[in-house]
Amino acid sequence: MTDNNQNLTELSSLGEFGLIDQLTKNITLNNDSTVKGIGDDAAVIKGDSSKQLLLTKDLLLEGIHFDLMYMPLKHLGYKAAMVNFSDVIAMNGTPKHMLVGLSVSSKFSLEALQEIYDGFKKACDTYGVDFVGGDTTSSLSGLHISVTVIGEADPKKVVYRKGAKPNDLLCVSGDLGAAYMGLLILEREKKAFKADPNMQPDLSGHDYILERQLKPEARKDIIKLLDEKEILPTSMIDISDGLASEAMHICRASEVGCAIYEEKIPIDHTTYDMAKEFKIVPSIVALNGGEDYELLFTIGQEDFEKIKDVQEVTVIGYITDKSEGERLITNDNQVVELEAQGWDAMKKRELS
Amino acid sequence: MTDNNQNLTELSSLGEFGLIDQLTKNITLNNDSTVKGIGDDAAVIKGDSSKQLLLTKDLLLEGIHFDLMYMPLKHLGYKAAMVNFSDVIAMNGTPKHMLVGLSVSSKFSLEALQEIYDGFKKACDTYGVDFVGGDTTSSLSGLHISVTVIGEADPKKVVYRKGAKPNDLLCVSGDLGAAYMGLLILEREKKAFKADPNMQPDLSGHDYILERQLKPEARKDIIKLLDEKEILPTSMIDISDGLASEAMHICRASEVGCAIYEEKIPIDHTTYDMAKEFKIVPSIVALNGGEDYELLFTIGQEDFEKIKDVQEVTVIGYITDKSEGERLITNDNQVVELEAQGWDAMKKRELS
Repeated sequence: MTDNNQNLTELSSLGEFGLIDQLTKNITLNNDSTVKGIGDDAAVIKGDSSKQLLLTKDLLLEGIHFDLMYMPLKHLGYKAAMVNFSDVIAMNGTPKHMLVGLSVSSKFSLEALQEIYDGFKKACDTYGVDFVGGDTTSSLSGLHISVTVIGEADPKKVVYRKGAKPNDLLCVSGDLGAAYMGLLILEREKKAFKADPNMQPDLSGHDYILERQLKPEARKDIIKLLDEKEILPTSMIDISDGLASEAMHICRASEVGCAIYEEKIPIDHTTYDMAKEFKIVPSIVALNGGEDYELLFTIGQEDFEKIKDVQEVTVIGYITDKSEGERLITNDNQVVELEAQGWDAMKKRELS
Repeated sequence: MTDNNQNLTELSSLGEFGLIDQLTKNITLNNDSTVKGIGDDAAVIKGDSSKQLLLTKDLLLEGIHFDLMYMPLKHLGYKAAMVNFSDVIAMNGTPKHMLVGLSVSSKFSLEALQEIYDGFKKACDTYGVDFVGGDTTSSLSGLHISVTVIGEADPKKVVYRKGAKPNDLLCVSGDLGAAYMGLLILEREKKAFKADPNMQPDLSGHDYILERQLKPEARKDIIKLLDEKEILPTSMIDISDGLASEAMHICRASEVGCAIYEEKIPIDHTTYDMAKEFKIVPSIVALNGGEDYELLFTIGQEDFEKIKDVQEVTVIGYITDKSEGERLITNDNQVVELEAQGWDAMKKRELS
């Protein structure tokens, strides 16, 4: 019952159903389409012939995708929801319903799980999504989160990875690489803390890049902005694995090539400075760092006038014929082939 | 590259996208409503205003829900799909789309994952479900499967746990307890094998109860039959945690009580014999064993004539006023309170 003199509630004292009751008691529903949320064999939502449904699922595993030593539990719940919202948004849709599968070892208390749920709830309330169900079970070790999000879109406005045409402009929202630099700082301070548990982590001045790692936002605002400006992207994807990998996904699905200008890649100055401190080329972080959850999309040239003054969007290159390949034009005007580092490649890479 | 002299493919040689390509190359789509399956940020399906959607998610974790020592991988994929199909069917719906999240440690080969996918595919093809997406990631240890199924139902025919009324008849499909007896046999043979690796597991003559544990079927046939007979249950749930627990869910959601006759609980003779061999009261296995994936439902008395000759359905009791509680009438005519053992209670219980 006690841990650090606090009154924490052991999960084993609750049972599965008592636990679910406790965790879900504050969940409210925001969408009229939700007929029945948590509490039956399945959630029930209204069908709507004027919409298409978007279904996505992402897993977050302790030790693989997050480290509880520096990831606050509430942020973890928020991020787990966000990476799924981002997938729906990358199809030009609106996330509407969420299911969560949570596996926890007995070391977690009810209060710890409530913090994760607070994060889910915050994400759902902020993005107008209904938390409608899921599954909670024990695990032999660690925390596993599986989130499924159902979204909807106007069938005429669903945007796929496929659809980019030669001469389309390649655009990206926000800035890239910050989430990865945030991770490197957290890892550095963790190492220092392990070496000397009396040290105080030095995280000051890094608010932006830490927030990008710990509390990313899905860019619902960008698809709203594009809609307001009457721009329908020809293709779109969210940046979870780094710009290079996502650009290659668009090229392969669309059967085209691309040219990306290194100098155009948007990188925040704090990301830039920190990359230099870690002796990494900043554009490499943007190309391969991942977890930015920005949108990479293509638009027809005729839409350039509409987008050129939008501060949150940068044109970083253009689409070419497939035969020209997937290319990066470097700051010193060299043309190199884009390379996707695959999953977790950055984690394996030597950093100096 | 080699294991037991076979040419097995290490996952690390493929990368995430190569792996997904390999695993999903044989997946075919069965439903016209599927606009886009695997291969984008989200799957896309058509909306339909004449239907309601049913959303469900269940987790299966190695070491908690299954033991790879005796669970064939193909059966595991099949079962992971089936437990979710069963949830949709328990709402009187038809499963239509499936997403799978799979986390695997590096000890798994491509060929092992392909066997799990063969199980998913078999389940989907048999039940007319489209496998439309998911996520695959590495785990630090063990295999975790998270399945989400989206189904549809006629809005006028969705059946909830809520809805049972006093004097309704309490009915169950098939027979109960076999899946748990199958588990006990597998656990017994595992122990014997561990004590003497040269022994041959003695599984002969136990085909039925083993199949109930290793390859359960969701009772789509029962809801079809009820529909043909123009019976709309007043409440329904699938039996995943044992009859007692599920009956209590119906009673609490419906704010009623129930009376179940022990002598009416359908138990196969092989389950009965095996329970006796393990020195467990057979009805206790049916009440608390779980994993039967049969349907427990209530019908109005006026439907009794329509259902009384249906071999696959047994009337085991009736619904009462809430004040009468949830009761079991034993074979020797004692009235005892129903008790749900909660999750995994049977696993913790002394068996002799």
